[in-house]
Amino acid sequence: MGVPKKIIIDTDPGIDDAMAIFVALRSPEVEVIGLTTIYGNVYTTLATRNALHLVNYYYYYFFFNGHLNLLEVAGRTDIPVAEGSHVTITKGTKLRIADFVHGTDGLGNQNFPPPKGKPIEQSAATFLIQQANLYPGKVTVVALGPLTNIALAIQLDPEFSKKIGQIVILGGAFAVNGNVNPAAEANIFGDPDAADIVFTCGADILTVGINVTHQVVLADTDRTKLAQSSGKFAQYLCKILEVYFSYHRDAYYTKGVYLHDPTALLAAVIPSLITYTEGVVRVQTNGITRGLTVFYNTKKRFAEVTEWSNKPTVKVAVTVDAPAVVKLVMERLMDS
Amino acid sequence: MGVPKKIIIDTDPGIDDAMAIFVALRSPEVEVIGLTTIYGNVYTTLATRNALHLVNYYYYYFFFNGHLNLLEVAGRTDIPVAEGSHVTITKGTKLRIADFVHGTDGLGNQNFPPPKGKPIEQSAATFLIQQANLYPGKVTVVALGPLTNIALAIQLDPEFSKKIGQIVILGGAFAVNGNVNPAAEANIFGDPDAADIVFTCGADILTVGINVTHQVVLADTDRTKLAQSSGKFAQYLCKILEVYFSYHRDAYYTKGVYLHDPTALLAAVIPSLITYTEGVVRVQTNGITRGLTVFYNTKKRFAEVTEWSNKPTVKVAVTVDAPAVVKLVMERLMDS
Repeated sequence: MGVPKKIIIDTDPGIDDAMAIFVALRSPEVEVIGLTTIYGNVYTTLATRNALHLVNYYYYYFFFNGHLNLLEVAGRTDIPVAEGSHVTITKGTKLRIADFVHGTDGLGNQNFPPPKGKPIEQSAATFLIQQANLYPGKVTVVALGPLTNIALAIQLDPEFSKKIGQIVILGGAFAVNGNVNPAAEANIFGDPDAADIVFTCGADILTVGINVTHQVVLADTDRTKLAQSSGKFAQYLCKILEVYFSYHRDAYYTKGVYLHDPTALLAAVIPSLITYTEGVVRVQTNGITRGLTVFYNTKKRFAEVTEWSNKPTVKVAVTVDAPAVVKLVMERLMDS
Repeated sequence: MGVPKKIIIDTDPGIDDAMAIFVALRSPEVEVIGLTTIYGNVYTTLATRNALHLVNYYYYYFFFNGHLNLLEVAGRTDIPVAEGSHVTITKGTKLRIADFVHGTDGLGNQNFPPPKGKPIEQSAATFLIQQANLYPGKVTVVALGPLTNIALAIQLDPEFSKKIGQIVILGGAFAVNGNVNPAAEANIFGDPDAADIVFTCGADILTVGINVTHQVVLADTDRTKLAQSSGKFAQYLCKILEVYFSYHRDAYYTKGVYLHDPTALLAAVIPSLITYTEGVVRVQTNGITRGLTVFYNTKKRFAEVTEWSNKPTVKVAVTVDAPAVVKLVMERLMDS
């Protein structure tokens, strides 16, 4: 294995965000060089608090095996957390916060104590630009929430899309209904204008939509295995997962939960887990299908110039090795 | 076989409209009780002229086997042609006319002489309402162009959607790219506001999208068979089809043409040719995906009330027996 890939996780923790962050931190293939926060599952302020909490928890239990107390850990973490935008890129848009999925605290209504440590001074967008400049072509952003921070980085620095290595997005619903409404998936719906900016910015982009992540289910039986594990993370996870399982039971009549964020994260960590197609993705920004993603494979010809013509292409995930993703998530979360 | 089903064809002839109209007139399962005209492949004025021309031609060659001259036939036709709207339902929208597909005259640049006969005094919408009142529950409208006339009928008479038997629509692109642009199919794009009114009106609706009609191809070899036939229609058709084949060669690199209108027509004539699913269809009316159709099967649950909630369902064609459709079209058009 070569040098670990540098990744920044843009996140709105979020139960499956927590899983994705821990999986990333336990993945030797990547080095997490920062977290940036965004509204979505919770408001941005709470996302920042939760990101700090997760970093604390990781350092305490995994990195130092519980040998330091949380106060000590807080001062030592090498993983900066940069707070992101509190509003959509066009401003004035009412935020849609999915606390009914993740609990009012975003982490399964566990009401964890306030985290130690603070976000860095830089905003998420500024941090993203700085890291892209520091390691041109080497940084992968894994975007697990609405795309406001990435769009702001693109607007602030026209070179950002060339300097960032890859942007892996959890977002979109391709040829299937959305999960906010029949048209829109939640992350794109959260800031459709930002999403359209990102999809058309020309960067190397891979997006993993719910047409793919709905294939990756952590079953009730997997949770039982976690509960039987003595690992600190398994114990932690079993606590926060109950709200998420409960939501899936009510909303989808399933005894399992979708691993949205861990799937997108692992698509960045181990690219061979998914296959993709390439084409132009545009986002509808108003009306009843606001937040809809429309993919165009550039093969079909049209008589007129369209809004998809001459736009950069992106990669859109088509299939996923779902059993391998679930296995990797379980293994990496039960290893300590 | 019981009493033939009464149908009204709402049409913008159009080369494949001409085929559909002739197939309808040669189908013992149905009785064509009128044609209504609409812009789309051509402007409405020319659609009316072409509809009258096709009725003339049919009566002269098929119904009277060439025993009457066109002047005599013109006065005798029992098939009224009612002229439809010249503008979209919201007015002021620039029309998109697909004369690059069908020729500037809409019928393969044959420049046929002016037809005998005139449209009836009633507008298309008024005629549709009148016929629905005359034969409540017994009239099927086969809509082969933008849905303005049907939407006007719904607006003029709130009972229309209950009194019309069925509305079979050629329109929409379900889980595939459109044919105007990646989002929109041409008939829905022609008047998205009208389409949304029709899809949500509560009538018994079956829509056949390009995801289905693109499976039904009249091949070059079929055209050769038509050319070898001595039938009057086969001869007529071979003339007008050249422009349509030429467009498909350029646009789709195929040596065949899509039988959009004949497929939708035959779905009304012989319903067993297609299978369908049921759900709510809404149409995006503005922005870059204007004219997009989004289908919701009503099974998936959403946390919030959506624009699809509590709307009437429609039938959306899923599969078609394409070889049977092509065979029927060929047989019915070569039989005289």
